[in-house]
Amino acid sequence: MPKKATMIIHSGDMDKAYAALIIGTGAASMGMDVTLFFTFWGLDLLTKGGLEKAGLSKMNMAGLGKAYMKRKMDAQNVASLDQLMNDARELGVNIVACEMTMGVMGVSEDELIDGVEIGGVGAYLNEAKDGNINLFI
Amino acid sequence: MPKKATMIIHSGDMDKAYAALIIGTGAASMGMDVTLFFTFWGLDLLTKGGLEKAGLSKMNMAGLGKAYMKRKMDAQNVASLDQLMNDARELGVNIVACEMTMGVMGVSEDELIDGVEIGGVGAYLNEAKDGNINLFI
Amino acid sequence: MPKKATMIIHSGDMDKAYAALIIGTGAASMGMDVTLFFTFWGLDLLTKGGLEKAGLSKMNMAGLGKAYMKRKMDAQNVASLDQLMNDARELGVNIVACEMTMGVMGVSEDELIDGVEIGGVGAYLNEAKDGNINLFI
Repeated sequence: MPKKATMIIHSGDMDKAYAALIIGTGAASMGMDVTLFFTFWGLDLLTKGGLEKAGLSKMNMAGLGKAYMKRKMDAQNVASLDQLMNDARELGVNIVACEMTMGVMGVSEDELIDGVEIGGVGAYLNEAKDGNINLFI
Repeated sequence: MPKKATMIIHSGDMDKAYAALIIGTGAASMGMDVTLFFTFWGLDLLTKGGLEKAGLSKMNMAGLGKAYMKRKMDAQNVASLDQLMNDARELGVNIVACEMTMGVMGVSEDELIDGVEIGGVGAYLNEAKDGNINLFI
Repeated sequence: MPKKATMIIHSGDMDKAYAALIIGTGAASMGMDVTLFFTFWGLDLLTKGGLEKAGLSKMNMAGLGKAYMKRKMDAQNVASLDQLMNDARELGVNIVACEMTMGVMGVSEDELIDGVEIGGVGAYLNEAKDGNINLFI
């Protein structure tokens, strides 16, 4: 039985999306069975163009804005969020949009990128109860 | 042995309180043993009227304010936070207020809603070390 | 085999640093094997003087600013963040700085406090996959 990892991505912040996708693709690369469950503000990341629009969780630190962080990411050869999301799907990471909060946040199924399942809290819990790593991001 | 879930609710945000209570009541409905440990800003949610006062973690998105989200929640037939907290207690979810931060945040025992235990980090760790799902929210 | 706990400290907020260090030192005191993995804004906490400079995650609540919280912490006999970090290292907690985000955030190795290892997502996942408690803070 492969080890299992789940992450709830509640935040729509760029830096937290990076953390989730880097951990998720890393875990999948190690052979783990990975599920990323996007809810509330995190749902924006699953809409077409949404990863590109994500902002930072903190802006008011010594000039460290989004454009600055993107330049630093490039200089470090860190993949873009779009690339990481593609990698995740190619590695077989399960990408799930939270059904209940899609209604609340006004995100419809046809706005979502390809390869996204729609599921509820029961689907999340069924994965997470056997998860070796379960994070809320 | 039933599966076990714990959540630390550090944030006092309405949307994060929803996430915690929906996951917590969902897990308890599936027969899991659930403990919600409220600390720092999360303690406000355990005071009388505190769930009603909770604000959103993000306000500055396309008109998505608290009143708007409440209307959308109603339209989706999502229970109120007060209802979810009642459900949690009826389902036997352990609701714990963090002793140390009650002092720091100025929350006294008689301000708390009914059915709340008071505990420290040791109580949390004793549950979480055997938890199948442990989240920090 | 001792139980194992890992925490990713993504936030640089004072109150979240308290939560991480109190849980981490508590778990280590109970004999658990603890790893704290600092990334993104959390890296600031590992720079010399960085714990002292950390701000609150929320400021706009009934006068509850950083100075107020520090006074309340003192009144409750809660150790300072510097003291808790020292305790953590003396208890054998593994303190790890995220290699990739050090470059992104502009934190160099010689700015770090003593006793910090540098590691990547693989190092994190190797600990967390066997962790009994894994949190993202």
